[in-house]
Amino acid sequence: MTMNWRKPALPAVDALDSLFDGLFRPMGAEGVYARTGRYEAVVEALQALISRQREEGTEVFRFPPVMSRHQIETHGYLKSFPNLLGCVSCLEGGEAEIRGAVDRHYAGGDWTESLAAADLVLTPAACYPVYPIAAARGAVPARGYRFDVACDCFRREPSRDLDRLQSFRMREYVRVGTPEQIQDFRQRWLETAKGLADRLGLAYEVAQASDPFFGRVGQLMALNQLEQALKFELLVPLRGDGPATACMSFNYHREHFGTTWNLRDASGAPAHTGCVAFGIDRLAVALFATHGLEVAEWPQAVRETLAL
Amino acid sequence: MTMNWRKPALPAVDALDSLFDGLFRPMGAEGVYARTGRYEAVVEALQALISRQREEGTEVFRFPPVMSRHQIETHGYLKSFPNLLGCVSCLEGGEAEIRGAVDRHYAGGDWTESLAAADLVLTPAACYPVYPIAAARGAVPARGYRFDVACDCFRREPSRDLDRLQSFRMREYVRVGTPEQIQDFRQRWLETAKGLADRLGLAYEVAQASDPFFGRVGQLMALNQLEQALKFELLVPLRGDGPATACMSFNYHREHFGTTWNLRDASGAPAHTGCVAFGIDRLAVALFATHGLEVAEWPQAVRETLAL
Repeated sequence: MTMNWRKPALPAVDALDSLFDGLFRPMGAEGVYARTGRYEAVVEALQALISRQREEGTEVFRFPPVMSRHQIETHGYLKSFPNLLGCVSCLEGGEAEIRGAVDRHYAGGDWTESLAAADLVLTPAACYPVYPIAAARGAVPARGYRFDVACDCFRREPSRDLDRLQSFRMREYVRVGTPEQIQDFRQRWLETAKGLADRLGLAYEVAQASDPFFGRVGQLMALNQLEQALKFELLVPLRGDGPATACMSFNYHREHFGTTWNLRDASGAPAHTGCVAFGIDRLAVALFATHGLEVAEWPQAVRETLAL
Repeated sequence: MTMNWRKPALPAVDALDSLFDGLFRPMGAEGVYARTGRYEAVVEALQALISRQREEGTEVFRFPPVMSRHQIETHGYLKSFPNLLGCVSCLEGGEAEIRGAVDRHYAGGDWTESLAAADLVLTPAACYPVYPIAAARGAVPARGYRFDVACDCFRREPSRDLDRLQSFRMREYVRVGTPEQIQDFRQRWLETAKGLADRLGLAYEVAQASDPFFGRVGQLMALNQLEQALKFELLVPLRGDGPATACMSFNYHREHFGTTWNLRDASGAPAHTGCVAFGIDRLAVALFATHGLEVAEWPQAVRETLAL
């Protein structure tokens, strides 16, 4: 674990909450907020900054906020995070059936009883859709693959915390290849990311981490993940001495997705994969929490880094 | 109805289908596709082109792809389009309950039986969230409001047609004010939009239209909408002599949202509202269908309009 706090003056809890009115508008649900132009300008600048770090030979994919339910089941998401998944449900059937549900609603009843699960879920992470796309091509070439992916993600975690939205933007660079290629990619990105955080004027530490796997079985999965050092996070302190906020993560999946999707090299061995993930909304909130609501008053070096 | 076909050579049905591999990747569900970098570059250029048309005093909001279920019920969406709505459903309850559903899945059963409707739906149009935000401010000022909104929208219409995605990007300019302000806004935008379509080299006609309201009652609502000339569409022919594709729409809602959200002027009269909506994905597909897959080979005037 690298301790690397760079700034002594940390924003307090109240400071984070007090950003709300300047950046968002309520939409009647916790963790689902309208984003102002002021906030979106920083989000766009962050996305462009990350694009400028794109390595040669990287393919770009942008995913819609929904994906195949069958694919997410194949990914094993139900084992790991069943409590966080949002499934799309619709009124199916003929006119009489659908009209019946609607009439029930207007009579004070519950129309949602008639909903049936569709073949879609809300995408919970930006890289999930890319593995089956890569696998459809056949054997992974010796140079592996590099992908730049992004998605509006959903996780069912209603909260008033500005750094834990239910609907949020995730950007990722994904590497597919040999264990050496993945380790090299992740190590390089750990350094690049620290450089970016420095240039953005953010306090941070980089620490080993585990995913919030579900339930008692999940605790074992998390221990295993820690033991193998599969996940690191770049954490930014946004609430004084309270827990810091993971704004980027650096993940080595080993052969998990290679095996799951039959994504193999020319010799038939399952490909290894890894990714660096940017929590775009968390980074944007961290920037406003650190430098204030007035972008014009941010340190010049930060504005130059973001071309703002 | 204005007939205004500008280009004689129209792409055939097969031409539209043949674009798929150059622009998208399958994701295992109809109308839900991964977007390539080539496609997204045009999407971003279109969004920027539309931003350059923003009128002074316009407030920008960007909405997440989910919104409050209660708000969409209040909007009357269940009356108009219950068949198109996607509701977010999740596994609720304690560890034992959720684990039970997951175990059922791995035993070959149906885990989705345990899903419960959450307080969220997938946003079906970009402007819905803006009316309650405007209403929360109190009386509408005499100059009214102008909003620039955008959202990833969802409508449950599985289809293989590239111009009918289930998940698609919608951008809108919204006007809130007096009937005169709305009519003036819509008339001006009808002309601006034709100018934009000309500069993009798109064939089009502008025609009166109605929404695809649900069921038999819906047919009456559609007739009423036509009778009052509440909706116009800018249609681009993408399949030879087949039906053209609505790429923009120009809508006058009268006092519908003003009454629904208690959005009133200083005298207490319900505000009128209208919007111009851009089907960003339809416009992008129309550009590729018209000018071909190689953006570098598009007419210079079109590339200049898009700054591509």
